[in-house]
Amino acid sequence: MLKSLRNTILRALVRLAESWPWLGAVVNRFFINRIVGIVRTRPHPWSTVHDYTSWTALTDQTFSARHLPAIPTPGQPELDALRPLFQRPPGPADMCPKSTLLFPTFAQYLTDGFIRTRMSQSEADLQNLRQTTSNHQIDLCPLYGLNAAQTRALRLGSDQPGQRGRLKSQMIGNEEYSPFLCDNGIPKPEFAALDLPLGFDGLRKPENAERLAHVFAVGGDRVNTAPQVAMLNTLLLREHNRLAAGIEAAHPGWDDERVFQTARNIVIVEFIKIVVEEYINHIAPTPFRLRADPSVAWKAAWNKPNWITAEFSLLYRWHALIPDQITWNGTSHPLAATLRDNRLLIDGGLARGFLDMSAQGACAIGLFNTSAALLDVELRSIRQGRIVALAPYADYCVYAGMPRPQRFEDISGNPRVVEALAAVYPGPDAVDFYVGLFAEDRVANSPLPGLLTRMVAVDAFSQALTNPLLSEHVFNPATFSAYGWQEIAKTHNLRDLVARNTARPLGDGFIGMTRPDWRYVW
Amino acid sequence: MLKSLRNTILRALVRLAESWPWLGAVVNRFFINRIVGIVRTRPHPWSTVHDYTSWTALTDQTFSARHLPAIPTPGQPELDALRPLFQRPPGPADMCPKSTLLFPTFAQYLTDGFIRTRMSQSEADLQNLRQTTSNHQIDLCPLYGLNAAQTRALRLGSDQPGQRGRLKSQMIGNEEYSPFLCDNGIPKPEFAALDLPLGFDGLRKPENAERLAHVFAVGGDRVNTAPQVAMLNTLLLREHNRLAAGIEAAHPGWDDERVFQTARNIVIVEFIKIVVEEYINHIAPTPFRLRADPSVAWKAAWNKPNWITAEFSLLYRWHALIPDQITWNGTSHPLAATLRDNRLLIDGGLARGFLDMSAQGACAIGLFNTSAALLDVELRSIRQGRIVALAPYADYCVYAGMPRPQRFEDISGNPRVVEALAAVYPGPDAVDFYVGLFAEDRVANSPLPGLLTRMVAVDAFSQALTNPLLSEHVFNPATFSAYGWQEIAKTHNLRDLVARNTARPLGDGFIGMTRPDWRYVW
Repeated sequence: MLKSLRNTILRALVRLAESWPWLGAVVNRFFINRIVGIVRTRPHPWSTVHDYTSWTALTDQTFSARHLPAIPTPGQPELDALRPLFQRPPGPADMCPKSTLLFPTFAQYLTDGFIRTRMSQSEADLQNLRQTTSNHQIDLCPLYGLNAAQTRALRLGSDQPGQRGRLKSQMIGNEEYSPFLCDNGIPKPEFAALDLPLGFDGLRKPENAERLAHVFAVGGDRVNTAPQVAMLNTLLLREHNRLAAGIEAAHPGWDDERVFQTARNIVIVEFIKIVVEEYINHIAPTPFRLRADPSVAWKAAWNKPNWITAEFSLLYRWHALIPDQITWNGTSHPLAATLRDNRLLIDGGLARGFLDMSAQGACAIGLFNTSAALLDVELRSIRQGRIVALAPYADYCVYAGMPRPQRFEDISGNPRVVEALAAVYPGPDAVDFYVGLFAEDRVANSPLPGLLTRMVAVDAFSQALTNPLLSEHVFNPATFSAYGWQEIAKTHNLRDLVARNTARPLGDGFIGMTRPDWRYVW
Repeated sequence: MLKSLRNTILRALVRLAESWPWLGAVVNRFFINRIVGIVRTRPHPWSTVHDYTSWTALTDQTFSARHLPAIPTPGQPELDALRPLFQRPPGPADMCPKSTLLFPTFAQYLTDGFIRTRMSQSEADLQNLRQTTSNHQIDLCPLYGLNAAQTRALRLGSDQPGQRGRLKSQMIGNEEYSPFLCDNGIPKPEFAALDLPLGFDGLRKPENAERLAHVFAVGGDRVNTAPQVAMLNTLLLREHNRLAAGIEAAHPGWDDERVFQTARNIVIVEFIKIVVEEYINHIAPTPFRLRADPSVAWKAAWNKPNWITAEFSLLYRWHALIPDQITWNGTSHPLAATLRDNRLLIDGGLARGFLDMSAQGACAIGLFNTSAALLDVELRSIRQGRIVALAPYADYCVYAGMPRPQRFEDISGNPRVVEALAAVYPGPDAVDFYVGLFAEDRVANSPLPGLLTRMVAVDAFSQALTNPLLSEHVFNPATFSAYGWQEIAKTHNLRDLVARNTARPLGDGFIGMTRPDWRYVW
C-alpha cells in the first residue's frame, strides 16, 4: 500500500519533469552531475606508463589512464581456473529481460571508436596492452578513420556538384555501402592508409575468399569483425552522404572540404545524441529519461580532457550479451559462422538487419553465460587486467562509493556465483576487477550490474558531453549550418536514422535496444 | 585630498588581504576569475586550418587556435610603409620605468616553450606560419625537449648512485652548464634527436666557429639565440640536477626514471610559480600581489584544454623592450654582437649574468622603439597576422571588452602615434592587430598597453593554472615527494632559484624583473 503510493508519486514526478521543459532540464542536470560525481574528476594522476605520477603519465595519450594506481593483488588464481566462471552451460542461455541484440551491437560500435588497446600479437609483446591507439574522443573514427591520411583515403574528394563532401561508397542493388577493400583478395592501393581489418590474416585463407571479397573499406579496423558492426557503420555512411547532399543543396558555394567537415560535425553530434538518449537511457535504471543537453557540461568541474582508462577498456567487454545463434534475414546461424561475414548484412539489406537485431533478445550479463566462441577472450581480458596491475575489484567498489565486500555473499546473492568464487579465490579482496564486475547481481531495471553501471555512466557522461562539438561556443547553428542544426534536432534514436536512410518503408517494424515487452519495475 | 583618502583606504585593503590568508585567497580567486572572464572560454571554435568550425579545427593541435575567425581587412598598407612606425630613432631609447632586462629575458624563455610557430624558410612556404610545433603546455620543453626521444637524448640515463635522474651537464670551472652540442663543428651523434638551433646555418660560417663551439645541447631550438635565454635554461638545468640529488638522497630505492620524473614534476611547478608570482605580478597594474593558488582553477568553467592561439603567437613579440646595447660582465656590447654567443654567459658565470640583466633597464614597449636588429622581425610579424587573416585590431578591442576605437585618438593619446597611424591607415578599423597592440598607450603601473595586458593575462592564467601538475588530484606531496613539496613551497622568484644554484654568495645583489627604483603610482 505504502509502496504503491510512493510509486504513484514517483511516476507523477517523472511525468511532470518530462512534460515541463524547465524542470526537466534541472532534473537532467541534477542526475548527470550526481552520476559523474561518483568518482574523482580528471585528470587522472596515473597512467599505464609509470606506477607514479609523471609528466609522461599526465600527457602521453598513447598509454591508458587509470582510475586507481597499480596494486599487485596476492592470491589470484591461475587464469584457467577461472574458465568455469564464464562458461555458458549447454541448453538455453540466460536471457536479459530488457535488451535486444541492438544493444550490444551499438555498444560494440561505440566502444570500438575509443577503446583501442594496442594488440599483442604474441606472448613477447604483452606489454603492448598498456598502450592504446585511441583518440580519446567520440570522433566516429570507425567511419572517418583515426587520422587525416585515413580520412583522405575514405573521402570521394570531388568538387563536382552532386559529389561534394561525400564519403566513397558503392551501390549494391538500391542499397548504399562502403566500397569493398580488396581487388582479387588484395587491398586496393587507394586504401593503403587504412589499418587492415582485425584478423586479416585469417581472412586471407582460401576458404574465406568470399568473406574477404565482402570486407568493407572503412575507418575502423574492427568494423568488419561482425556484420552487426558493419551495419551500424553503413547507417552512418549513408547519413553522412545524405547530409552532404543536403548541405550542398543549401550552400552551393561551399567546396568539397567545407561540405565534408560540416556533415562530419553533424553526424558526430547525432551519434552522441543517440548515445545519451537511446543507449544510456536503455542502461539507466531510473525511469526519468536523461537528455543530451550539452549545457550541463559547459561550466561543470568534471569537464576536463577525456582520457580512456585501463579500467574502461576492460569493463566494456560484455561478451555474455551475445547469443550462441544469431538470425539474419530469416536464417539462424551459429555465432562463429557470422563473424567477419558482411554477406549476412548485404543479403537482407540495411533495414532488415536493424529489424532482425531488434527482434532478437540479448543474453544476460553475468557469470556462466559466455558463448564458447568468446570464452578465450574473457580469459585474455583478465590477463590484461593483471598485466596493467589493476587493483582488485573490492578497491573499485570503494572508489565508486559502494561498500567494500567482506564476504563473497556481498558480491552476489546468487549461491552458484558465491560458490564458484569461493572455489577459486581465497577471499573477496582477491577477486579480479574483471571477474567481480560480472559476478555482481544485475541492478533492477538495468541490463548491467552495479559497479559496471556506475563506471559506465560516469565515463559516458564525462567523456561524451565534453566533446568539443558540444562546447559552449561551438554548439550552435554556425557550426552545423541551419540545415544541419535542424537535422540534429530531429535525431533521437537509431530508428530515426534508419528511417531516413533506407528505400524500404519501415512501417511499424520495431527498431530499438529495449525489448518492446519490457516494463519498468517500480 | 579625496584621492589621498581613497589611496589610503586602498592601500590598507591591499595590506589586509595580503596579511590575512583567507581573505587573500578569496581576493586572489576573484581577481583571477575576473581576468580570465574577459574573453570567451575554450575550446575556441576556430583554428588556422579552416575558416569555419570543423573537427580538424577542434582537434588538430598542429594548427593554431584563434580567438576570432578569419576576417580579411581592406585598406591595410604595404608592409614597408609600416617600418617607420616601429623604427627607434637615433639617440637614447625610450625606457620603461618598471622593468629590468630580466623581464624580457624571462618572457622570451617562457614563450619559446609554447609559442612555436612553424618557421617559413622561404616565400613559398609562408603557409607554414599557420602551423605550430607547440605542445600547448608549460612543459619546459626548452629544458626537456619536445618529445620522448629528445628527452632521452638530454638525460644522463644512469642508474648509478649519485647519477640517478640527472640531465647531462658539464662543469666549466665550478659552474655547471649543458654539454656543448658539437664536436669539431658537427653535432654529436648522441644529440641527433634534438632540433638544430635556430639559425644553425649561419653559425656554421667560419667566422662563427667560436660561437658554434659554445652552443649548448638543449631541448629548445631557441635557447641558444641569446645568452640571456641560455642563462635561464642553465638555471633550470642546475635546479633539476640539484633536485634529483635531493630526491635520490631521500629515496635511495628509486631508480633513474622515477628520480628524473619526480624532479621534472617539481621544476615545472616551481617555474609556473615564478610565472605567476614574479612575472605576472610584474606585468599586473594592480597593487595586490596575485598568487599561484592551483585550487582557483579546479572547478573553474575556464579550466579547458590549452591551445595556443594565432593571436597569442603575435602579441608576445616585445621587441621594443630590447636595448641597442647590452652589458655582460662589465662590458657593453651592441645587441647584434651578443646574439648566439654563449661565451658572454660563460665568461661571467650564472650569478653574474642574472645580476647584470637585473641591473639594466628594459626599453619601453610601444611604437618608434624597436632596435634596428629586430626591425625586420616586426614587419614579418605583421605579415604573419595577415597570412592567417587576423581580424583588425578594433575587433579585438571589442572582443576583450574595450570600446571600439572610432578615431586614431582613441588608440593613443600620443600625437606622434596618431599622426603616424593616420599617415598609413585609412581609419582605425583598418589598423592591423599587431600594430594596434603596440600603438596603444601603456597602462599605468604596467610595462604593457591595455589590450596586450588583457590578452596576456587571460592566457597566462587560463593556460598556466590548467597545467595537469596543478590539478585537483595531482597537486599533492605524492606527486613531488615530501622533499619536492617543500622545495616548491620555498620557491617564489628567480632569485630563490639562483641563490640555490650558484657557488658564489649573492649577498644583497639585486635579481628581479621590477626595477628597485620603481614605485607604484596610486
